[in-house]
Amino acid sequence: MPKDMTQNLSVYSRRESAARSYCRAFPTEFTSAKGSVLTDAEGNDYIDFLAGCSSLNYGHNDPDMKAALIDHISGDGIAHGLDMHTDAKTAFLEAYEEHILKPRGLDYKIMMTGPTGTNAVEAAIKLARKVTGRRNVIAFTNGFHGMTLGSLALTGNSGKRGGAGGAHLGDVTHLPFDGAMGEGVDTLQFIEAMLENGSSGVDAPAAFIFEPVQGEGGLNAASDEWMQGVAKLAKKLGALLIVDDIQSGCGRTGTYFGFERAGIVPDMVTQAKSLSGFGLPFAALLIKPEHDIWKPAEHNGTFRGNTHAFVTARVAIEKFWKDKTFETELQAKTTLLTTGLQDLAALIPGATLKGRGLMQGVDVGSGDLAAAICARAFEKGLVIETSGADDEVVKILAPLTTPDETFRKGFAILLDAAREVTETNKIAAE
Amino acid sequence: MPKDMTQNLSVYSRRESAARSYCRAFPTEFTSAKGSVLTDAEGNDYIDFLAGCSSLNYGHNDPDMKAALIDHISGDGIAHGLDMHTDAKTAFLEAYEEHILKPRGLDYKIMMTGPTGTNAVEAAIKLARKVTGRRNVIAFTNGFHGMTLGSLALTGNSGKRGGAGGAHLGDVTHLPFDGAMGEGVDTLQFIEAMLENGSSGVDAPAAFIFEPVQGEGGLNAASDEWMQGVAKLAKKLGALLIVDDIQSGCGRTGTYFGFERAGIVPDMVTQAKSLSGFGLPFAALLIKPEHDIWKPAEHNGTFRGNTHAFVTARVAIEKFWKDKTFETELQAKTTLLTTGLQDLAALIPGATLKGRGLMQGVDVGSGDLAAAICARAFEKGLVIETSGADDEVVKILAPLTTPDETFRKGFAILLDAAREVTETNKIAAE
Amino acid sequence: MPKDMTQNLSVYSRRESAARSYCRAFPTEFTSAKGSVLTDAEGNDYIDFLAGCSSLNYGHNDPDMKAALIDHISGDGIAHGLDMHTDAKTAFLEAYEEHILKPRGLDYKIMMTGPTGTNAVEAAIKLARKVTGRRNVIAFTNGFHGMTLGSLALTGNSGKRGGAGGAHLGDVTHLPFDGAMGEGVDTLQFIEAMLENGSSGVDAPAAFIFEPVQGEGGLNAASDEWMQGVAKLAKKLGALLIVDDIQSGCGRTGTYFGFERAGIVPDMVTQAKSLSGFGLPFAALLIKPEHDIWKPAEHNGTFRGNTHAFVTARVAIEKFWKDKTFETELQAKTTLLTTGLQDLAALIPGATLKGRGLMQGVDVGSGDLAAAICARAFEKGLVIETSGADDEVVKILAPLTTPDETFRKGFAILLDAAREVTETNKIAAE
Amino acid sequence: MPKDMTQNLSVYSRRESAARSYCRAFPTEFTSAKGSVLTDAEGNDYIDFLAGCSSLNYGHNDPDMKAALIDHISGDGIAHGLDMHTDAKTAFLEAYEEHILKPRGLDYKIMMTGPTGTNAVEAAIKLARKVTGRRNVIAFTNGFHGMTLGSLALTGNSGKRGGAGGAHLGDVTHLPFDGAMGEGVDTLQFIEAMLENGSSGVDAPAAFIFEPVQGEGGLNAASDEWMQGVAKLAKKLGALLIVDDIQSGCGRTGTYFGFERAGIVPDMVTQAKSLSGFGLPFAALLIKPEHDIWKPAEHNGTFRGNTHAFVTARVAIEKFWKDKTFETELQAKTTLLTTGLQDLAALIPGATLKGRGLMQGVDVGSGDLAAAICARAFEKGLVIETSGADDEVVKILAPLTTPDETFRKGFAILLDAAREVTETNKIAAE
Repeated sequence: MPKDMTQNLSVYSRRESAARSYCRAFPTEFTSAKGSVLTDAEGNDYIDFLAGCSSLNYGHNDPDMKAALIDHISGDGIAHGLDMHTDAKTAFLEAYEEHILKPRGLDYKIMMTGPTGTNAVEAAIKLARKVTGRRNVIAFTNGFHGMTLGSLALTGNSGKRGGAGGAHLGDVTHLPFDGAMGEGVDTLQFIEAMLENGSSGVDAPAAFIFEPVQGEGGLNAASDEWMQGVAKLAKKLGALLIVDDIQSGCGRTGTYFGFERAGIVPDMVTQAKSLSGFGLPFAALLIKPEHDIWKPAEHNGTFRGNTHAFVTARVAIEKFWKDKTFETELQAKTTLLTTGLQDLAALIPGATLKGRGLMQGVDVGSGDLAAAICARAFEKGLVIETSGADDEVVKILAPLTTPDETFRKGFAILLDAAREVTETNKIAAE
Repeated sequence: MPKDMTQNLSVYSRRESAARSYCRAFPTEFTSAKGSVLTDAEGNDYIDFLAGCSSLNYGHNDPDMKAALIDHISGDGIAHGLDMHTDAKTAFLEAYEEHILKPRGLDYKIMMTGPTGTNAVEAAIKLARKVTGRRNVIAFTNGFHGMTLGSLALTGNSGKRGGAGGAHLGDVTHLPFDGAMGEGVDTLQFIEAMLENGSSGVDAPAAFIFEPVQGEGGLNAASDEWMQGVAKLAKKLGALLIVDDIQSGCGRTGTYFGFERAGIVPDMVTQAKSLSGFGLPFAALLIKPEHDIWKPAEHNGTFRGNTHAFVTARVAIEKFWKDKTFETELQAKTTLLTTGLQDLAALIPGATLKGRGLMQGVDVGSGDLAAAICARAFEKGLVIETSGADDEVVKILAPLTTPDETFRKGFAILLDAAREVTETNKIAAE
Repeated sequence: MPKDMTQNLSVYSRRESAARSYCRAFPTEFTSAKGSVLTDAEGNDYIDFLAGCSSLNYGHNDPDMKAALIDHISGDGIAHGLDMHTDAKTAFLEAYEEHILKPRGLDYKIMMTGPTGTNAVEAAIKLARKVTGRRNVIAFTNGFHGMTLGSLALTGNSGKRGGAGGAHLGDVTHLPFDGAMGEGVDTLQFIEAMLENGSSGVDAPAAFIFEPVQGEGGLNAASDEWMQGVAKLAKKLGALLIVDDIQSGCGRTGTYFGFERAGIVPDMVTQAKSLSGFGLPFAALLIKPEHDIWKPAEHNGTFRGNTHAFVTARVAIEKFWKDKTFETELQAKTTLLTTGLQDLAALIPGATLKGRGLMQGVDVGSGDLAAAICARAFEKGLVIETSGADDEVVKILAPLTTPDETFRKGFAILLDAAREVTETNKIAAE
Repeated sequence: MPKDMTQNLSVYSRRESAARSYCRAFPTEFTSAKGSVLTDAEGNDYIDFLAGCSSLNYGHNDPDMKAALIDHISGDGIAHGLDMHTDAKTAFLEAYEEHILKPRGLDYKIMMTGPTGTNAVEAAIKLARKVTGRRNVIAFTNGFHGMTLGSLALTGNSGKRGGAGGAHLGDVTHLPFDGAMGEGVDTLQFIEAMLENGSSGVDAPAAFIFEPVQGEGGLNAASDEWMQGVAKLAKKLGALLIVDDIQSGCGRTGTYFGFERAGIVPDMVTQAKSLSGFGLPFAALLIKPEHDIWKPAEHNGTFRGNTHAFVTARVAIEKFWKDKTFETELQAKTTLLTTGLQDLAALIPGATLKGRGLMQGVDVGSGDLAAAICARAFEKGLVIETSGADDEVVKILAPLTTPDETFRKGFAILLDAAREVTETNKIAAE
């Protein structure tokens, strides 16, 4: 980094908490972004294979959303309206009902929670406990649901859990996710053995919560059969089914919702990340009407419903989800991604593909190797990160709208980086 | 409400969760807002004495913030950057350091938490537990700190707590806030009796957390002596002092921070609501450098640091806090408010003033009466709400920038409403 | 200690856990005991002012209980009968009904819990939670209720609580016992302030539990008004009142039950210690019939109801509680004790009397001084211990049946010991 | 039952809590017992195949223990000595060291906990948490460890857990016991998958606790390989291994300790039930010296160490465990039991044998059938009960000293009862 930029950034070491993280992996100052490309203060361009951790599924500064937002602000549209009715909210709700719920035959109430994914998760588990009168929630190995205490209790990662400083992370039972016990072991069998035995010590569950594809946990994709099995078991036990679609939703796995392919209808669905379309803070909880027993403000929050986000979210829905065009494009893009990842995996002995749709990656077998590849790729102009229990997966979360050429260019950088790292390693090993 | 608007709004009953609340008290559709005035779809104007629950301390759509934000968006500035370095963030941090921290002799690290107040609170208590190796946190009667499980455990209101559906709200001891035991009873004496006795059963605390003025709890203002006493006790017991300044900060009580007047320096300070200046979701936690022991991403979140909010927050700081001008204006405005409230109190036998600075109200002795006054005021063009354990306080949270004339006009409406309601009640009672 | 005895006792250091305690204060091997006198292997006699911590209220090896027990064993009476009906149990229940419940107009069901006080306490709080559907239990500063997790959560002492190794000690709120905030401060006012405010953060209680006189906590005696106030508040709040009479019962404070004098009727009463009369393990929980909603074996235990203890307990009831004779004797004995303690207090500047009935002591102001006096007393042939948060109280728990002469002899030793210690201290200080 | 006895027993319905249970299954009043025979007030004899739930492994009123106990009491031996040194305790400790620990090459400290099994379990988990600084304890499906909150959290049975009235039963993870997932499924694989994955959400364990044979849970016997696997895993993870040998110890499974056959050396072992030999309340915790970090009285209790029990426990050790004679006899007796159970199983289609040593039974496939057989057997003069998650196992827990003839006589009754019940059922079904 040139000297003057370092000086510029010294305010971060002086003033920002040590909790900051991405800026350590991508040590530059970004100033603008468009589509799938980020630009820094030096004028360098970076292809974005991270997309705000799936918060920018439609790319940076989509021109239609941008225009609508500027228009809204220019006209002194409401910026903050608590949960009062506003024209922006009305339009969002109508678009969501018309283009998301109706075509999928879904009947949900939408709860505007605080604009973070973890808030939607907290609302979901609170409601599940209220509805069932039970406390225990079933979460799964390698699941990630957020960092506030209720969500953190659901999260698997021991490092994240350690952040609670020893506070009680209770009322949750963790059971093995699909595939968590290795190839060929059906974890549903274990789940049932623990939950259908009245003397197992596992209290009757209020809810099950899972991600269709585990984003932070290593791109583990639940099979349709497993999702259906959990849904069936939940019903049998009188528990609610919550799908945490925060990272896997909004088209990321090929359909609007990550659970659509399994044909299940969860009792609740959490949404955030790409919900606003523009990267603005926004989260919501979908609730089957019969479970919507909240009293007014029983779960509230100052920023519940972010009006600017309503504006862009409406545009996103109308632009991308009015018909099947976008979904069809995603299939072609997925093929492109899979091919690229196969090329990457071919470079690394033992590497395997993980994930689904445009939420795929390669398990390179070691966190150090994955980190080295990503670091090298950044030097070459690609923003990309790792995931998994040991950060052993190189994860691609590119905007779903990435043009094929940009996509190929990004992959060329990634392959180059991988080649260089593996060759350096080979030389070092000799 | 005219018929067509009702039709317009039916999407809310069809699709929005029963948890919605403010829209029930203010049943119209707002379309624009400027300064201290909201306008609805019918073209009706409403004076805003609620200000997004203190999230709009500088009014709606401040022209300077608005211009800067439009400029940022127009230039494809970063909308979502995770916690990467961006020029908007750099500028915000520099302004905050220069105009907020330096003049007050404060040395804090700033942690960008998820953009909701509850997230900042959760981060604070997690960190306090990590730092001290203790679990117990001291919170106070009538305190409100948020709705996610960790914050909800700190919150006093039994209705809000009931929303947890019976989940464990533990690792917290509630003790009486200043004034909670009536006039003339020094609650510090009780607090010390419970905490300085090694056989009290109250475990050694990791932290104390309080609001300088309790916003949701009924505008209870802590005296300087009480704040100092808690600070001293925390230090003596090896506990951290966390001030939750989310509602009382950003000038609301007359100074930038609500605790300044007491001359204390908390170990941590939570900020949100008016931090962005524009009503955009934004929250932060100030941490004394010696306690900033977070590992990278040990507490994280997708929307930590909202880039649009950095833009407006910087403008807010530079516009209002560069020198003492604004603070001086707040004194005059406070006098105006106190006078208005005295007039209101004079109408209601037994009514008393509550609060501090521009965060004052009148305890009218009954939740029903307070609700009736606010409802009548809305019909007359004033947005205003109640607070307190029994919603018995008519609370004024007008933008700090409200012109005197608007202020007086708002008060005229409020007094009319109060008069009408009390007269109706009298007639009903006869 | 003579050499051979040391050798004898080396098996303790080799094999008994470091948790052992009284043997450290009284380092000899006891071989027999009769009435108020213990005899060791060397033939030394010790007057017993400890009485098994109030487990031997009728002295050691009462001849009538002894005869009945030998008779029972000789005739192959049942030693262990789970909770089956046995003649010994029948006779105990009938005697308890006839001589304890009837004369006091009490209508209780008797639950035979595991034969330890803590087990009776655990049963009580479990039942209170079941009956009310609430979780929170109100316990008091300096209270001691046992060492298993449920009881330990109720216990105040931080050292004891630390033994849990960080396990959750929750679902309990600790409030100040009578007198805990100093002379003249009515703690009921504080208790009510915390419990009658719906926004205090203290959840609605399932029960209140207190000891009429706190044995381990420093001989703090609750006034009649305080006990009545708590009883009234419990009723008002829909909570059950549990009196833990384990140490204060069986005549210790002058009446059979420690709460009789206040004219209250608790919903549940825990009994143990002197219940068997002979020092045998035995505990029971008295339950108002309307709260006895246990399912069979819903709280069970192998040794619930100790048949040998039924035999001696029946004799104890018939011998001491058939009429008012014993109670009258206790008054005289109490006067004797108070006089002795006044003499002791007179030796130590600032010393004050604590407690009630035959459960009194002297707060000598320092744990070191109290320990020194007790240690010196042991050397002179008196078994006596300290209590209180800082072990600052010299506590007398002599058998209630101690002959006046023995009582005076014991006090002579105690006064000598106190004199010697205070003089030595004076010399050391000079 | 004859009228006068009913009258006799009416005090139970009047005065004993509804929690009473065994007396419901065996509705008579027992008055004496000798060896394996109980006698009621009518003079009826009953063969005892329950033995106080394994608390009377040496039968009722063993003549040698009885003589020693009468001798102790007659000589005014200490009945209650807190945890002071007494000659009875010295002799017990020496016998335990000489005949139990030394021959098995075991080096344990003995902690005298309150005299109930649950108290020993509570002490064990508290100590494990203190030693490791961790909170989570691994317990197993169908495990039973007691009814106080700490132990109840470890217990699997949902009915028992429900007795807590909703109190927090936390800091425990339940995993599948050996065989819990059906024939041929190795539950160790599941256990390892959950504990060796740092993102499983299961916190690092302080301890594992299991019963070698689950008494209440349905006579599930852990294989040697499974016990070894758990021991190995505990060591690998830095967790302590606690064996709960309360029901399976003192010879019940063929050796003194239930874990001996697996060649493992637990870090802690809980003992109770038959420890006193005579059915008297007594419990202890064995602790490896390096883990005995208790401070004096950090876990205490009034009745810790029951002196009468020391007397009989010493005799039991010297009579039965001085050499291998008794152990050899147990093998022959086990063969007898197995044969009897095979005869029983042959009567019931699908019935299977469960358990190990003299802790065996027959799973008859239905709780109703098992209950009917036991009820019929009682009418014919046999005391016997069921166990298992659905009470589907007819369980034999006869005294280990039962003469062969009595054993055969008992089995004849049991077979008759089973025959009658199954025939009645057949007729009813036709």
